Formats: sequence, structure tokens, C-alpha cells
Amino acid sequence: MPAAMTGPHEVAELIARIAPTDTRAAEQAQRLLDGKTKPRRSLGRLEDLACRLAAVRGTARPPLPAKAIVVMAADHGVTEEGVSAYPQEVSGQMLANFASGGAAINVLARHAGAQLLVVDMGVVHPPTARAGLDIRDARIAAGTANFTRGPAMTRAQAVAAIAAGAGIAHELARDGIGLIAIGEMGIGNTTAASALAAVFTGASPDEVTGRGTGIDDATLRRKIDVVRRGLDVNRPDARDAIGTLAAVGGFEIAGLAGVVLGAAAARIAIVVDGFIASVAALAAVRIAPLAAGYLIASHRSVEAGHRLVLQAIGQQPLLDLDLRLGEGTGAALAMTLADAALKILAEMATFETAGVTNTDRDNSA
Amino acid sequence: MPAAMTGPHEVAELIARIAPTDTRAAEQAQRLLDGKTKPRRSLGRLEDLACRLAAVRGTARPPLPAKAIVVMAADHGVTEEGVSAYPQEVSGQMLANFASGGAAINVLARHAGAQLLVVDMGVVHPPTARAGLDIRDARIAAGTANFTRGPAMTRAQAVAAIAAGAGIAHELARDGIGLIAIGEMGIGNTTAASALAAVFTGASPDEVTGRGTGIDDATLRRKIDVVRRGLDVNRPDARDAIGTLAAVGGFEIAGLAGVVLGAAAARIAIVVDGFIASVAALAAVRIAPLAAGYLIASHRSVEAGHRLVLQAIGQQPLLDLDLRLGEGTGAALAMTLADAALKILAEMATFETAGVTNTDRDNSA
Repeated sequence: MPAAMTGPHEVAELIARIAPTDTRAAEQAQRLLDGKTKPRRSLGRLEDLACRLAAVRGTARPPLPAKAIVVMAADHGVTEEGVSAYPQEVSGQMLANFASGGAAINVLARHAGAQLLVVDMGVVHPPTARAGLDIRDARIAAGTANFTRGPAMTRAQAVAAIAAGAGIAHELARDGIGLIAIGEMGIGNTTAASALAAVFTGASPDEVTGRGTGIDDATLRRKIDVVRRGLDVNRPDARDAIGTLAAVGGFEIAGLAGVVLGAAAARIAIVVDGFIASVAALAAVRIAPLAAGYLIASHRSVEAGHRLVLQAIGQQPLLDLDLRLGEGTGAALAMTLADAALKILAEMATFETAGVTNTDRDNSA
Repeated sequence: MPAAMTGPHEVAELIARIAPTDTRAAEQAQRLLDGKTKPRRSLGRLEDLACRLAAVRGTARPPLPAKAIVVMAADHGVTEEGVSAYPQEVSGQMLANFASGGAAINVLARHAGAQLLVVDMGVVHPPTARAGLDIRDARIAAGTANFTRGPAMTRAQAVAAIAAGAGIAHELARDGIGLIAIGEMGIGNTTAASALAAVFTGASPDEVTGRGTGIDDATLRRKIDVVRRGLDVNRPDARDAIGTLAAVGGFEIAGLAGVVLGAAAARIAIVVDGFIASVAALAAVRIAPLAAGYLIASHRSVEAGHRLVLQAIGQQPLLDLDLRLGEGTGAALAMTLADAALKILAEMATFETAGVTNTDRDNSA
């Protein structure tokens, strides 16, 4: 059971449960789309999206899925180095805001018709009036350690965070959820994500480090230097994704990697939010390459490293809205496109039933 | 009354009714957004969209609008020159398909929660079982003339088409519609749109002529030549937008330009679909430059000339999904983003009410 998973052996079992997506179902879905009253492929990437969802669900006509957005929050020891415009208290305050329904992701989850699961993976200042708030407690510790002085967490903590995420995906699958979006919140977590992106893509720290929630030039230079020092001190091995997550990652990032692995194991597509969530997805793909087939990139963030990370997971995002908030906001918007793609597949008339002349059919052999 | 408008005098009156959008309402909306629990501007172009809708409606907190999609269809004499992969019968067949609910735009209009108004601006083969179908009759003629041999239509016909569109917008405004999307259908209409785009942007025919619904290389070369001949024969004057519409336009394109003008006069934002609808919007802007403030470009079409046309109306599209169908499909998808933007404005908590530390406020003077 992934919920009780605590060691590397269980991660190996989780990896083994991830099957390739069903390319035959995708081809069947494309054939269905080719019979609809429109020029072939004229709905472009909306058609690709329908086919990908067909491949993930293993059927050419997947029903509209029940949807959930998992937002994980945690704190980062590396904020000691002054890499963020916000104090660490904000992570806990935002957890409370998520639980009270006032954050952007609450608005957009309602808009998308998705349930929202808010998870505390380890903020330093959890909301004080916790009892009244619907926050899942999956705390690994009160924030990671400062990775410029040693690893952010132990390997056991990284595995526990992955296990917690996989357990949540397992639980959502059991409850009938068919599409999961991942988002995050955590002061300092673009710094951790930049360090992970540098390791996983082989890019230099200045190529993958951006302004996060909005820092000035001096802070950006310091942030790049912090990433560089984190890599120098820990020397993470890119081939060891779990070790890399432990060295310079974060609890919410490792947790989301676990959600990706757990969802993929349950044949559920994962709509990936911006830079940090994409880094979590990339970590998952490095742990289990077959997970890549289950990913849907939602939007292109303004964050510097996002393009390289999307390339590394073989994804082109659906939206390009200059978002840089995180929380799963871009993923929530993309979820509505997934619904639209499935409705096209299910509801459109065919040339035959509508009595429309089909020259595409005549042109094809 | 625009519904009865039949002459150039009435077009002048329509133009005079278009007011500048309310920049103060947009600034107030941005200030409201800056107080929400997120880093400033971190929702990027979703914030721009909310502010634009505020400017159009003249209030910092516009309510969620009732939505309508206007799809206009017509035929094009220029199809005689072999510029399309589809026979002309398809325009009328697709009108019937729209009216029966089986086309892509029907599915996506339902998805967006928008009512769909299907308008016959002049197809050659109207649906035979017309009585049972909900199709608005605004037919100017049974298709335009072949513009390689003279003007596509008379100036009076162009004005009548604009008037019909403006009348429909007027009617929708009266019925409480607050957001209008425009889409089109018409075999051969990318050829007319390319000719108009060449005139209005000053680009050469090969820069603005693409593959439409999917033609081969030889047909593309012929199509570019047809556009070139149309411009040589008619020599349209770019400063005379109505004359240009008459020379190389189409009834549905002139009609949609009228919808844009009528909607702008009623302070309603227009969500513009792909290449052809964008050309209609550009024609409207050349007739009444203030209409530009009311436009929202939905998606970047794969059609060659779309980028130049979007530049000419000062718009960056929200979606980049490789769509090339038309019908208003991209606009319908973008309508859901407009709703999302307005919900962010209306529903998100502020830093104060949520008790979240706001360093943006501290940093600003």
C-alpha cells in the first residue's frame, strides 16, 4: 500500500506499477476525431489532448473525469540566505488562506469544478487555528535544512515525502478521481526548484534561476549564487533522482513527485502547473520514465528555467498567460481544456450522421 | 436603429456611438487585484483580461456576463478558382449542422455556457429543411461574386452586411448579453480573408495566405495567385475599409465587422476567433479605431497571416493550440478564461482579510 510506504523498496514497487500508456486507445480516439464534422486535425492540440487522455485511461472514449487539485506547501531552510521577497510566515498563512477558500487556486478550482486538497508537507509556522481548517497533515519536518550547508533533507525524508504524495494519489483514485492537477506553495521553493532543474537538465544555475514571486536584481544574483553553492556543497548525482531531491529539493516538491508516480500507477493523467510543479514532474520522470506519458503541461511560466524543464519532460504547455503564481492556478485553467477536449470527442457529430460532405475521407486511402 | 441601418450615414452614426473604453475602471480593477493574496501581477495576462473587461464595462468589478457566440456563414464566388479542399455545398450543410447541435462550436458553446446564434449571411445552398432549424436569415445574396473578375459585392451590400451584424449585436445587448464571441464558416473564406489582410496590413499575398482547411502545395500556390489577381483587378484602397470589404471581402466577414462595431457601441467586449474573425475585427477597427479597445483575441491560428493581423489590431492571443477550424471554437475556449479572470477579481481574498503578510505593499510607496 503506497500510503504506508516508507522505504526505497516501496518506491521500487510503485515504479513497477506504472504501465505504458495505451497508444492503441489514442489512435482509436484520433480516428473518432477524424470522422467528426471538421477538417482533419483542425482542432490541433485540443485533439492531442483528447488522444493523450484516451491513452492514459486506456479507452478511446474516456468519460469526463472527476477532478482534484493537490496543493502541497512546505518551507525551505535556504530562505535564511535571503532568496525571497516574502518572509517564511507566509507559507503557513497561505495554507490557512487555501483552507478558507480565499486564494487564487480556490477560485480557479471552483471554476474548473475540481475538488481541492490542501496538504501541509512541512511549513515552519502552521496555521494556529488548525483544528477548524481542512488541511491534510503530511508534515515531514518544520521546513528543510539550508542546502548551502548540507543536504536539504535526509534520503529517508525524501522517500517519506514521495510516499505521502503517492498515498494521496492512491486515495484520490480510490475515490473515483480521474484527473489530478498538482500545485505548490512555499516561500523559497523556486530556489530549490532551480537547483533541481540545474541538476536534472544539466543547465547552469543562471539559466534556470528566475525572479520567483518578484525579487530585484541584487536578490536574483544572490539566489543564483545560493543555487551554485547548494550544488557545490551537495554535489547531487543527476542519475539518482531521489538523492537529488534530498540534496537540494523540498518536501512539497518530493511530495508532488510522489503524486505524479501514484497517479501514473493508477492510470490517471496529471495536469502540471508551472515551474516548480514541472520540476516535481521531472523528478518523477527521472524516477520512473514511463510517468512521462501521464503528464499534461498546463502553461508556460515566466520563470526562467521552465522552458528547459518542459523540454526535459517532452511537454508543450497549453496556455501562455505569463503566470508566475503557482498554487496550481495554471493547471486549474488547463483542466477546463481537458474537459473541452473530451466533450469534442464525445459530443460532436460525424460527417455521416450530419450529412456533411467529407473530402478528407475521399482524399485518404 | 442599427437593425434598420441601410446606408453609409447609419454606419457613421454607429461609429459615433463607440466611446473610448474606461481606463479608470481598468486602473481600479488592477488596484483591486494588487490587494489580493498573491504577488502583484503574478496572474499575468489573466489580470490584463480582467482589467480589459473592467474598462469595457466601465466598472472595476464587472459581474460575470451572459455570453453569446455569433457564427456567420456565407459562400464565396472565388471558390470557382479552386482554392478550397471542400465543395461549396459544405457551407449550407455546416449551417444545418450548427443548427442541429453537432458541430465543434455547438460543443464548445455549451462548454462555455454561451448561447449560439447561427446566421446565414448568404450561402449558395441553404439547408433545405430550413423551417425546423434555428438559423437567422440575414442573407445578402447567394454567395459573393468571384473577386478575380470584379468586386465580390457592391458597396451597398457591404454596408447591409455590416448593418445586419450591428443589428444582431444591438439585439444581444438588449437581451442582457455582456460578452460576445465571433466565429465564421464559409468555403473559400480564408482566400477572402487573406486578400483583406494583404490590403489592411500592407503585406504581400504570399505572407498572408495559408492552407485554410488543409490544401496541398499546388492549391496553395493557386490560392496566392488568386489573391494577387483579386487585388490587381479591384485595386482596393486600404483607407476605405468598407470599399475594401466590398472589393475582396465576404458577407460573413462584413457581417462580423458589423457585430464588432455594434458590440463596441453597446460597451460589450468581443472575443475574436481565428484568422478570418480577426480580419473582420481589423476591418471594424479600420472603420472605427476605438473599437480596438473592445477586442479580446482568443487564440493564435496556424493560418499564415494571423500574426500580422493580430499585430495590426494590437492583440496578443490567450491560447496557442494550433487550431485552424474557425466557427468561433477558439473564442469559445477563451470565454472560459474571461469568466476565470472576473472570478479572480470578484472572489479572491485580500491580504488584509486573509491575514497574509504583504511585502508588496511594504515595497511600494
